[in-house]
Amino acid sequence: MVRYILEIIGTVAFSVSGAVVAIQKKMDILGVTTLGVITALGGGIFRDILIGKTPPTAFNNPLYALVAIVAAIITFLPVVSKRINLDRFIWVFVDSIGLGAFTMIGVSAGTSFNNVFFEIFLGVTTGVGGGVVRDICAGNLPMIFIKHFYACPCIIGAVVFVILNGYNANIAVILGFTVIVALRLLAAKYKWHLPKAK
Amino acid sequence: MVRYILEIIGTVAFSVSGAVVAIQKKMDILGVTTLGVITALGGGIFRDILIGKTPPTAFNNPLYALVAIVAAIITFLPVVSKRINLDRFIWVFVDSIGLGAFTMIGVSAGTSFNNVFFEIFLGVTTGVGGGVVRDICAGNLPMIFIKHFYACPCIIGAVVFVILNGYNANIAVILGFTVIVALRLLAAKYKWHLPKAK
Amino acid sequence: MVRYILEIIGTVAFSVSGAVVAIQKKMDILGVTTLGVITALGGGIFRDILIGKTPPTAFNNPLYALVAIVAAIITFLPVVSKRINLDRFIWVFVDSIGLGAFTMIGVSAGTSFNNVFFEIFLGVTTGVGGGVVRDICAGNLPMIFIKHFYACPCIIGAVVFVILNGYNANIAVILGFTVIVALRLLAAKYKWHLPKAK
Repeated sequence: MVRYILEIIGTVAFSVSGAVVAIQKKMDILGVTTLGVITALGGGIFRDILIGKTPPTAFNNPLYALVAIVAAIITFLPVVSKRINLDRFIWVFVDSIGLGAFTMIGVSAGTSFNNVFFEIFLGVTTGVGGGVVRDICAGNLPMIFIKHFYACPCIIGAVVFVILNGYNANIAVILGFTVIVALRLLAAKYKWHLPKAK
Repeated sequence: MVRYILEIIGTVAFSVSGAVVAIQKKMDILGVTTLGVITALGGGIFRDILIGKTPPTAFNNPLYALVAIVAAIITFLPVVSKRINLDRFIWVFVDSIGLGAFTMIGVSAGTSFNNVFFEIFLGVTTGVGGGVVRDICAGNLPMIFIKHFYACPCIIGAVVFVILNGYNANIAVILGFTVIVALRLLAAKYKWHLPKAK
Repeated sequence: MVRYILEIIGTVAFSVSGAVVAIQKKMDILGVTTLGVITALGGGIFRDILIGKTPPTAFNNPLYALVAIVAAIITFLPVVSKRINLDRFIWVFVDSIGLGAFTMIGVSAGTSFNNVFFEIFLGVTTGVGGGVVRDICAGNLPMIFIKHFYACPCIIGAVVFVILNGYNANIAVILGFTVIVALRLLAAKYKWHLPKAK
């Protein structure tokens, strides 16, 4: 149940984040919707392919695509798109929600394989997958490579989940999610950065 | 049989469309052939991965790769490449043929799953897949995001197929294909466009 | 055993090649490590998806990711990164080692399918896959399309393997690998090139 709610929240968040990037690239309403849908479904489709679950959930159940389409179209409305464009922090917040939600969905989809490394890897891949596809499709350098700390919160949140999952799966998901969103927002606000090569 | 002919037509068309993009990017003959093959086989390989059909058909049967290689090399010949470069409309026409053919192949590959949403989704993914890979590999913004109406004809054609498939599969394929090519050419000729965000 | 050693050598080589590209793009240490890991694991993950082996080996066994992480971090150290940046030929050499190793791993993973075309295709895809993902993620035109002879050595080396595999699998792998590395280095040194369209 918690996972299901998280999946809807993550789908909405990533669709909005993709739609905003598309609007900035001056795409039309169909391009905006398409990039929203690809961002929202991309990570989950990649996860399902990796665990051999075909056809992927997103192809079997139209709900996710519908939610993503509606979220992207609402983002396209001038009232909404202007607001998000004005305040960059709203975009980072929405993107963090998607990142946290999908990392948790990915890491908990991996529990049946009894391999902690695999769980964490699957969580991070599912979490960052949608954003990487979004950035590549929009002709941007994927954020995962340039933003301080983009993948770090995912890894830390996935580890939190793995540690707590033995006690209570729901609490593990909620805490892991919170850690990811909090760390990413703190990193963005205080501009945490890691060393670069000279 | 109709599907088989369509697959060869689509392979030739997408290989030519990829080869032309490669020539415009000043690639050598091997780059031109490679981009042609990737464009021609990309959508089908992605479709097979999505439905869990591994190894993908394109890897099992060398015919498709051979057809794509020959089509790309012929496109590379000065007599042919000059002609296509001079007339942009020829390129759009060839690309539309590939789009229509692969959308029909994808949508009919999905019929056994008894899920109309899945069929349409698979048709659109197969249809636009090769072009998206081509554009990303060539460093262009994928056409699906910027060209008026690129994905729209696919969706409409896939719906036409789904409606008519109950009566006659071959007629459904041929009509769906024709609708896609016609709509895309009309959209290109009359520069139909959808609203952008302000 | 030979294949296993080759897999480690290839993982180190491709991780270094990805890390150097990331350093040139001014990424921080996390971006450098991530691109190293993606380059090192990308080709193999794609190969496993194509042959239906899910979850992919790289997700089940943390060894490959760990080796890639360590290799990328060492490359990030100023002592190492400065040296590689000064001498472009070192980078080409490292990339050729990765290309040769992964082509051989791919082609020998395909032998059980009893289809020579499939073996060669799988070898080339595995060999060039990591580099294509690396270049797309870094916002570069994939080398496979622009560098003289990038895919050619792969195809020739894969054919060498297929011919010799009936006699002795280890000798086939070692000779195929040597042919790929040698041809690619010769092509880079003497700037072999293929014709472009006018």
